[in-house]
This record gives sequence, C-alpha cells and structure tokens, in this order.
Amino acid sequence: MHGPIDFKITAQDGEARTGSITTRRSIIETPVFMPVGTQGAIKGVRFEWLENELDARIILGNTYHLYLRPGIDVIRKLGGLHKFSSWSRSILTDSGGYQVFSLAKMRKLTDEGVEFRSHIDGARCFLSPEISMNVQAALDSEIVMAFDECPPGDAEHEATRKSLELTARWARRSKQRFDELHTAQSTNFSSSSEKKRQAEACTLNGMQALFGIIQGAGHLDLRNESLERTVEIGFDGYAIGGLSVGEEKDVMYGVLEHIAPKMPKVHPRYLMGVGTPEDLLEAISHGVDMFDCVLPTRNGRTGGAFTSRGKINIRNARFVDDDGPIDPDCLCSVCARYSRAYIRHLYQAGEMAAATLISHHNLAFYLNTMRTVREAIAGGMYMAFKNSFLEKLRENQDGGV
Amino acid sequence: MHGPIDFKITAQDGEARTGSITTRRSIIETPVFMPVGTQGAIKGVRFEWLENELDARIILGNTYHLYLRPGIDVIRKLGGLHKFSSWSRSILTDSGGYQVFSLAKMRKLTDEGVEFRSHIDGARCFLSPEISMNVQAALDSEIVMAFDECPPGDAEHEATRKSLELTARWARRSKQRFDELHTAQSTNFSSSSEKKRQAEACTLNGMQALFGIIQGAGHLDLRNESLERTVEIGFDGYAIGGLSVGEEKDVMYGVLEHIAPKMPKVHPRYLMGVGTPEDLLEAISHGVDMFDCVLPTRNGRTGGAFTSRGKINIRNARFVDDDGPIDPDCLCSVCARYSRAYIRHLYQAGEMAAATLISHHNLAFYLNTMRTVREAIAGGMYMAFKNSFLEKLRENQDGGV
Repeated sequence: MHGPIDFKITAQDGEARTGSITTRRSIIETPVFMPVGTQGAIKGVRFEWLENELDARIILGNTYHLYLRPGIDVIRKLGGLHKFSSWSRSILTDSGGYQVFSLAKMRKLTDEGVEFRSHIDGARCFLSPEISMNVQAALDSEIVMAFDECPPGDAEHEATRKSLELTARWARRSKQRFDELHTAQSTNFSSSSEKKRQAEACTLNGMQALFGIIQGAGHLDLRNESLERTVEIGFDGYAIGGLSVGEEKDVMYGVLEHIAPKMPKVHPRYLMGVGTPEDLLEAISHGVDMFDCVLPTRNGRTGGAFTSRGKINIRNARFVDDDGPIDPDCLCSVCARYSRAYIRHLYQAGEMAAATLISHHNLAFYLNTMRTVREAIAGGMYMAFKNSFLEKLRENQDGGV
Repeated sequence: MHGPIDFKITAQDGEARTGSITTRRSIIETPVFMPVGTQGAIKGVRFEWLENELDARIILGNTYHLYLRPGIDVIRKLGGLHKFSSWSRSILTDSGGYQVFSLAKMRKLTDEGVEFRSHIDGARCFLSPEISMNVQAALDSEIVMAFDECPPGDAEHEATRKSLELTARWARRSKQRFDELHTAQSTNFSSSSEKKRQAEACTLNGMQALFGIIQGAGHLDLRNESLERTVEIGFDGYAIGGLSVGEEKDVMYGVLEHIAPKMPKVHPRYLMGVGTPEDLLEAISHGVDMFDCVLPTRNGRTGGAFTSRGKINIRNARFVDDDGPIDPDCLCSVCARYSRAYIRHLYQAGEMAAATLISHHNLAFYLNTMRTVREAIAGGMYMAFKNSFLEKLRENQDGGV
C-alpha cells in the first residue's frame, strides 16, 4: 500500500465499476454506502450491529457537528474520533462547509473563511480551509474532505461561477494545509505555534487521504471547469458536491451522466449526501463508487422503511395486524424476527425501538443493495440488474416516506 | 412440573433464599430482577441483548398499556404477547390496577371495577377483575397478577381498610375468572358468550400461574389481614403491593421486615415496582424472591447510571474527558467498550444511543447484582455480602439520578 489509501478497480461494466479502497483500518469494497455518524454515532444503531451483522467498513463523521460538540480539544485529548467513539474501522469526515451553509445562523462569508453562529448555542465560530484541515486531522479520519462552498441547487450561472472560484481557492488552501500537517514532523519549525501544529500532526504522517470536491450546481460547463481545476490541484479522490440540494431530479441525473465518467478513473469517485436507492443505482451506472446519506436513519425515525418493493411507512393502518417482516426479501436480523404489526405498535406507542429497528433494517437494505450491485457489476449484468431492481421498487410505493 | 409453574428453594441464608421458578418457557433463578417491558419492549434495549448478553429469563408486560394500545384484539389475532413481540422467554403481566390509579384520568371506582379515561386519547375504558383476567389470558403471560386497588403510601388506616376489603373481593373474583378461563375447555358452556370465553381460553389449560397481592399501606395490622385473606383464597405466588408509592423509606422497610417472612415459604414472593439496588438487597434479606422496576431504563434515559460505587449522572461535567467505563467493575458490553466521555457526549448531543447504552448497562448492573446475590446466599454469606455491597455503593453518590 503506497500512500494513505489504495484504490483498485476490480471489475468494469459500462461505466459502472467495482473496486476496493484499502485504508490503514479496513478494506472497503465499492460501490459502497457509508452510514452517517453525524455526531460520532449512527442514529439508532449500535456499532456492534454495524460491525457484526451489517459489516459496514466505513462510516461518516461530521466535522461541523463534532467541532461544535464535544469540540476538538476533547476529541484530541481522547485520541481522535476512533478512540473516542470506539469505531475502529474507517471514517470519512466532511469538511463542515455544507453544514455551515445549511444549519448555522448568521453566516458571514469572506475569502478567508466563514464566520457563523453555532446552531446549538449561538456561539460565534469560524471555519476556513485551514481550520477544517486542522479539525479533520484531530478527528484522525482516513478520508478528509476539502473545505468548499455549496451553492443552492437552483443557483444562477453567475452566482455559481463566483462560488466555484471560491471553492477552487479553498481547495488549494485545503491541500496546502493538509500537506503541511502531514509533513510536519520532517519540517524544522521555529515558532511555538508551529510546534503546536507539529504536535497536532504527530500521528498523521501521510496516513490520511484528501478528496477534492467538484461543484457547479446544474451548469455543465461549470461542472467541467470545477473538475479541471480540482484535478489540477491533485487529490486522492474526487467528490461530486452540490447535488440533491433542491434541484430537480433530472438536473441531478444530467450532471451525474455528464461529469462522473470524466472524473479520474484511477481515483475513487464519491457522490456526497445522495440519496435514494434509485439515485444510487443511477449514479453507479455512471461510475460513482461512494455514497453517504442520512435517509436510512432519518426515515427510520419517522417510520419510513425501504424495501425491495418500494418505500413503506410503518404508521400505515394496514400494518396493524400484519405479521410479516418489513421486507420479505430482506435477511437482516430485524426482518428475521420482528413483524410489521409489532414495529408499527412500537412506533405508535412512542417506543424508541421503532426507530432503532427500522433504521437497522434500512441500513441493512442499503448495504445489501450495494453487495448485490457489486455482484451484478462483477457478473457484467449491471444494466439488467438495475432495471429489474427499479421495476420491483415501483411495485409497492407508499410515498411520503 | 406440576401446575403452571414449579418453584423450588435451593438455598436459605437467614430469611434470604435462592430458588428457581420453572415455567413452560424458561427457568428463572431467584432472587430475580425482571426488566420492565411496559408496551411490549424494554425501553432502549433490544431483546437480542437481553437474551444473549444479559440473559434475562423473564420480563414484565403492562396490562393497562397493552389493553389500550395496540389492544387485545390485535394481540390475540397475532397469537399473544410472546408471538406479537417475539419474546419467547417468560412474561409476567401486571393487572392494570396500578396504572389505572397512577396514569388514567377521571376514575370512577365501584365494586364492579373502575371506569377511567385513557391517558392516550381520553377514550372511556373499564377494567374489572374479570376483564383483567381476560386480557392477561389473551396476553398469554406465564404469571398473571390479581386485579387490586393500590392506596397511596400515606393512606390513613380507615381508608386503607376500605381499599383492602375491595382488593380482597377483587382477588376472589380474579381467582374465579382465572379458574374459569383455565378450565373452559372441559366445561360444557351453553350460551354464546360462554363459547366466546371458551375460545379465548383454548390455549390456556392451566398454563398460566396467578399471583395474589397483599396491600395494607404502612399499617402492619392491615398487612397481616391482607396476607391472611389472600392466602385463604390460594394463589401460585404472593406479591407485596403498595410499596414505594410515596411512603417514607423506613415505612417500606418496616413493612418488608414484618410481612415478607410471614408469606408462604413454598411460593414465590414478589415485591412489586421496587426499587433501588439498596431496596432489593433489603427485601432479599427478608425473603423476597422477585422484583421489577422501571428505574434502570427510566434513569438510563436521563443520564443516570447505577454503578457498584453508587449512582452517577453522565451529564456531570467531570465526565467530559473521562475515558473510563461507566462502572470499572462491570463486565457488560457497554462498559467493555464505551467511555463515560463518549456517552456523555451522546447525551449532550441528544443521540438516542446515550439512553440505549446507559439503560443496557443499568439492566446489566441489576441482573449481575442478582447473580452475585444468589451466589452469596448459596454460600451462606448474604449479610456480609450485603454490608460490603452497600458500603461500596455509598462511595461515590452523585445524587439526583
């Protein structure tokens, strides 16, 4: 293994591909879905289940959330996010940029970075490419994301271009600070602040990978430009940002079809924050390798279950005495044991077990779908698989999940 | 095994004793703590953990809650509470009486039973000894509780006596209806309502045990009288009700010392709804065999953890960077893996994993304490064990859990 991660493509079927990402902590087979551990835990599902049954090899941690709470001093003191949370497989951390724009109040954007007030207590905070890299170094994740600005899905061309310019400058500064942190030990620092930096970086030494992010909203020419400028800087992997942020579905699919195949083939391609099972299958057909999304656990908390025959909502009265599992085709421990009637009862009764069990099943559904996807690609039958999978999904749509 | 349950005393140490209760579904070693599954689930802890790690052999189900939601028709249709919930070990159901008096609104008490409005939707409901037996038959629990009235902990002598008279009449009617349900198959019913009863009882046939309840608040003469009248009716086990309902601790301990040793030795003795680890050790020293209490899971949801050195609250700022386990002496899977700092962070961040992990540990603490208690009694060292256990508990009291 040379460098922080090792990416190998193991099969190709049209643009779709399977591969493996080896980090110091786990081997991640791609295409992969990464459960979201916003605040250092997967909502509703204990790590034990993720390790033993669901076999998740990588999860996501949110820099914005962890930066605000418990704060980097605590996490650094306790040895990084892995030790703090006890999750010993891989972690990808986002840059915090997206949450600053979607959650924080009173943002003030400058070229230097973004000042904002914490959504928790209103405290004045600041994030910049440099600080994001520092924080992600302290979190000690395997994959670090460059600090970017994410314009709204329906952003006009001019606004998007302006945002993209900023993202490009921030990408360069992210890379620079990241490299400093990872070569700190071999550099002779003189000032005490640089000694502090050195101490912060002492466990890094090139053990983290850095991914760049392609923005450009729905404008294909700007997507092209963003891709070029990001590749020019040079990253260990490339992400598509700014999708599923309010734009129409056909805009998203248009961008994916246009840009994903142009992204460097030898590096992992990551579609950030997307999406439904349909979205994942679409993106995979254009060569995307990595995904994360809060849908499985967020929907799980409101009774929404993903099944091979489409989404259902367990609150629906027709499940009141339904002794079948959430998804008859699912082999997860929830479907093997608990009935729709029972889980519906738990939901109606306000028992947290409802959220726990549905979230568990939903993650199982996403991860098992990725397993099946990998088999289909390896077998050279991805398009046939995709079509029959989508057809089955349409059988029993409850809607409104 | 003769009858629905088989109780054997295996060791005696002063009044304290160990034993085993064999039901058709599990062997329950006593003294036993029964986790409370109010609405058919243990709050925050999946059955898989209760079975595999905590090895709980019996849990409690609340008749009042399940009667109101999902309702008996649903549970009956799905084959009883075991099949409905997937819990295949033993279940004890309470009679619903206590919740009617503590939760329901606008109660109207008559000799026939109690009319009340549901705390969920205000619907007019009615419970009586007969209905409680019917409901518990549908729930298909291993141990059924007689329908009783529970006066407040500070009830005056006259009011307590009046209440006790009602409880005695209800105990007799509970027994009568219970016996009808359990012999229904061999009786020749003529009316259609009796045929319905017969159908309801078709899986019972003496497979449930019925426990009587001793009331009398803090009045020892009334406790004596209640005990005599309950034993006169004849039950498979006897419970002490009406403690830990607002009376002073020394009143409770006085009642326990006075009444527990007088309860029939050959039957299980059950102290209902109590209590702290200290309370359990005290009651065990007077010969009590069974306990249930919401404290481990209720405290778990507000950050309260029971440890061998006393209660702590994980919200306490001193745990912010404490990388030790909740209880260094605990061998549960939560203490083996997660730190106080991490669980505190989860609590502060509003992650349901905080409740889940602390509730799990708390149940482990209760169940493991009962294991140690049984060993101490079997070894003839219960009083020495109790004293050293209590002394250790006092080391590190946070209070306010």
